[in-house]
Amino acid sequence: MSEYINEIEKLIHLLTYLPGVGPKNAERIAFFLANTSKDFKEDFISTLSSLSKNVRKCEICHNFSNDKICKLCSSTERDNSILCVVEKPQDLLAVEKSGAFRGRYYVLHKLLSPVDNILPDDIDVNGLINAIKRFGVKEVILALKSSVEGEATSILLFETLKSLKVKITKLATGLPKGGELEFVDEKTIYEAILGRKNFEN
Amino acid sequence: MSEYINEIEKLIHLLTYLPGVGPKNAERIAFFLANTSKDFKEDFISTLSSLSKNVRKCEICHNFSNDKICKLCSSTERDNSILCVVEKPQDLLAVEKSGAFRGRYYVLHKLLSPVDNILPDDIDVNGLINAIKRFGVKEVILALKSSVEGEATSILLFETLKSLKVKITKLATGLPKGGELEFVDEKTIYEAILGRKNFEN
Repeated sequence: MSEYINEIEKLIHLLTYLPGVGPKNAERIAFFLANTSKDFKEDFISTLSSLSKNVRKCEICHNFSNDKICKLCSSTERDNSILCVVEKPQDLLAVEKSGAFRGRYYVLHKLLSPVDNILPDDIDVNGLINAIKRFGVKEVILALKSSVEGEATSILLFETLKSLKVKITKLATGLPKGGELEFVDEKTIYEAILGRKNFEN
Repeated sequence: MSEYINEIEKLIHLLTYLPGVGPKNAERIAFFLANTSKDFKEDFISTLSSLSKNVRKCEICHNFSNDKICKLCSSTERDNSILCVVEKPQDLLAVEKSGAFRGRYYVLHKLLSPVDNILPDDIDVNGLINAIKRFGVKEVILALKSSVEGEATSILLFETLKSLKVKITKLATGLPKGGELEFVDEKTIYEAILGRKNFEN
């Protein structure tokens, strides 16, 4: 015997694709799952099935949603004049929790990163332009992290949006250099939003 | 909006139960899964379903198996006179890969650990006794790690098996104190098996 049974080998293989899960950890998780109750496994399976069937990206802001248009985009109580661009749904939630912003959102899901083969064409700028036009947005906040990738993406968006005659701002500095927006505390995000500045390349 | 949509919240919750996955990592994995292709998700779901349906524990050695009796236990080419007790299926594979052992196995799946509420009654010693009797085993190697839990479990097994008049051995020292057997290199395990000693409390 030189390998585990097929189902476990296959599961280990799939688990290694998950972020932050190395080969040894994948093995542990696979054996943990093999050892758990049938109920836990069934619960996991039905949750993943439901994710696969019922979760899509909102056609406007690209955040995950159960409906074609998400609750935030279909809400009539949000400020149409301002839109916040974030990298990830987790970032959107972090901004939302800060309480400093009641406008619209746009989720990129990725940042420019030539090393990872994420090039300008992979950033859906047209989706952003459509959202700006649909809501009649006057100001776009680029709320991307202050890393090389975040700044390169901000510059790309700034250059593309210039012609639209919208005000383009970015979060106030004070965010830790290279830090993930999602890990910043609510107070810091609150102040960064209030202290936002005009974007200048 | 103060939370993610239901399917994602539920998935994050389930993921935090996995070993080595903290709350933030669970969030990342959940969003990774939400973002992956439908194919990947379906593959994951069918692998888990297959694990749930087709993987059981071998009735003799308790290793994971597709059949009531696993391939190792049903093989006629193994040495019936010697049996190796391991904590986990990963440890069994590590011993098997060392090439120093061609006997039978018994997988405990847990070690004594009062802190985690794993008490003597939770260790299936009767299953081990049945395996010893079924194969006519003359020597039992206790191949458990040299941690407090591993040594306590070895002592429990030694005390219980004494009356059976089987030789009880343990792996040669040389294993790193507290080290996980599964991470030890094959050569070290090979030498530890060849240099095994009689168990004395």
